[in-house]
Amino acid sequence: MRTTVGWQAVRAGNTLRRVSLERRELRGDDVAVRVDYCGVCHSDLHAVRAHTDNDDAPLVPGHEFTGVVTDIGREVARFAIGDTVAVGNIVDSCGTCAMCRQGQENFCYEFPTLTYSGTDRHDGSTTLGGYSREYIVRDQFAYPLPTGLDPAAAAPLLCAGITVWEPLQALGVGPGSRVAVAGLGGLGHLAVKLAVALGADTTVISRSTDKADDARRLGAHDLIVSTDEQQMTASRDRFDVVIDTIAVPHDIDPYLRLVALDGTLSHLGHLGPVTVQTTDLLVGRKKLSSAGSGGRPATAAMLDFCAKHNVTADIEIVPSKHINETLERLERNDVRYRFVLDMSDLS
Amino acid sequence: MRTTVGWQAVRAGNTLRRVSLERRELRGDDVAVRVDYCGVCHSDLHAVRAHTDNDDAPLVPGHEFTGVVTDIGREVARFAIGDTVAVGNIVDSCGTCAMCRQGQENFCYEFPTLTYSGTDRHDGSTTLGGYSREYIVRDQFAYPLPTGLDPAAAAPLLCAGITVWEPLQALGVGPGSRVAVAGLGGLGHLAVKLAVALGADTTVISRSTDKADDARRLGAHDLIVSTDEQQMTASRDRFDVVIDTIAVPHDIDPYLRLVALDGTLSHLGHLGPVTVQTTDLLVGRKKLSSAGSGGRPATAAMLDFCAKHNVTADIEIVPSKHINETLERLERNDVRYRFVLDMSDLS
Repeated sequence: MRTTVGWQAVRAGNTLRRVSLERRELRGDDVAVRVDYCGVCHSDLHAVRAHTDNDDAPLVPGHEFTGVVTDIGREVARFAIGDTVAVGNIVDSCGTCAMCRQGQENFCYEFPTLTYSGTDRHDGSTTLGGYSREYIVRDQFAYPLPTGLDPAAAAPLLCAGITVWEPLQALGVGPGSRVAVAGLGGLGHLAVKLAVALGADTTVISRSTDKADDARRLGAHDLIVSTDEQQMTASRDRFDVVIDTIAVPHDIDPYLRLVALDGTLSHLGHLGPVTVQTTDLLVGRKKLSSAGSGGRPATAAMLDFCAKHNVTADIEIVPSKHINETLERLERNDVRYRFVLDMSDLS
Repeated sequence: MRTTVGWQAVRAGNTLRRVSLERRELRGDDVAVRVDYCGVCHSDLHAVRAHTDNDDAPLVPGHEFTGVVTDIGREVARFAIGDTVAVGNIVDSCGTCAMCRQGQENFCYEFPTLTYSGTDRHDGSTTLGGYSREYIVRDQFAYPLPTGLDPAAAAPLLCAGITVWEPLQALGVGPGSRVAVAGLGGLGHLAVKLAVALGADTTVISRSTDKADDARRLGAHDLIVSTDEQQMTASRDRFDVVIDTIAVPHDIDPYLRLVALDGTLSHLGHLGPVTVQTTDLLVGRKKLSSAGSGGRPATAAMLDFCAKHNVTADIEIVPSKHINETLERLERNDVRYRFVLDMSDLS
């Protein structure tokens, strides 16, 4: 085994502690990545807070990171030592099911192997995430980071970015599309940047005008205040696509009413059951959809698009040793718009 | 006022009785229609059963009928006396809102005027439906019945037909599309015929094999038994479009699982809230939609298509005086697939 250093959950519902971690020796198709930057995703926070001392499996969060290849397995042709690469929230899949064959490894019938708290398909071990100095990953699930993309600001593209990119692509967003983004957080701000870069007429829906300047700076053309009934009513049936990134359970009917004839509300914010009034779908023949994560071809295409259009996340870089304060700040939404851990303090 | 004869609800939750009815004198843009055939829709049954003696408004059901123009208002240029016409469940709308301007009068912001139990936009009276010998309708909401369509078998196209036609069109169903229709009743059997005529590879989903022969006769290429878990599992992610016409509240997740990547479940069967597991939408980036009734352009296009492809409903014609027994038979699903009242006994 190889050893590295990382941040592991050690006390119930609380904090991460710096520990020594074991990584597997390289398989033929593995690459070893020195993790330089790792984004802090809301799911990391949920995982840490939900972790208890009774959990047998170790928890090391982190599933959107960039770094440099330090070693390659004997079959690896895609990468060379020294390449800058990016890794997202999936590190393996069956490769043979209908979804994998369509390049949607995120929907793998046998469930994709998650970057942390997943189960390795070969040795059955629990995967340990990117809050560490080294990660070993199957070459197919590492992506070359295109030249010109800042490795720190690009890290959140690998989870937040691809999660909003897939529905924008699947729903055909392009020049002239009318897109609204509800919720301006980690997902939302990237949805705005990508929709704008795709040429869409882009509107932010926010609970107040607090983020009006930010919305403008991100490229949005308009802002609707969701608590202002008059504004919401005036925007009825206005958008071809509404991307709902609100991360807490909420009534989606007010957002459905903003969707135009034959348009779609794509609901990304949270998992669990969603209830919708049939009439809010029926009147205007509207569609409700959901998406999450992304397949390999879409991830590669998204990175190329971002490099071409200079799209990265708005980030605040923090030393990895500040992870616990960082999670607390994320918990109270004190971030615009994504924390990225600088892993160099683990060397 | 003009007088005619029709079938009106007179006792709570029970039966219809033959009564004399008043119809308005023709306005400039009205046509008078001698109703020859009127389909019996599930909503008629619901309306009759829900009617109580305390309801002030009279109830005369019927919103899918065909007949012959017997008189026209002075501004009417679209029709001449003697023309065969068809009328559906909408007889007026505001004509100026965003939906009306898009030809979707069924989604009119001011709510369309329903063919029965609606409120006339000019005189405020309650509309009385097609279970009668004469109906007065604004010319814009009557459709020329194309030559070649049997007037009796065409009547159900005006409600059941257009309700399934709109989603098939909006979802781009055509040659090569993989379509499944859940529930083989009034809506479902027309969805099968229209999908087949559009060139789709069409499958019926039914609770048993009882309707296998019918499904084949309607043109379906396959049948899945929804109570057979193995069959349902084998059809996972198989259809671009699933048209769910099941008329009672039911779990839609098993049907969502049959929808292919980026496909849509269109849910037509009933109104009310629908709950869906986000993961059943997310995995495969599936869409949930709904539809009902149709706008004027789509209705006209559907009738033309049906004439060209020889599509009408499978009907059982009954004399209108048998309406009460007919509603009882409909209540126990003893119909393949639509009852049509022959109104000639009202002369």
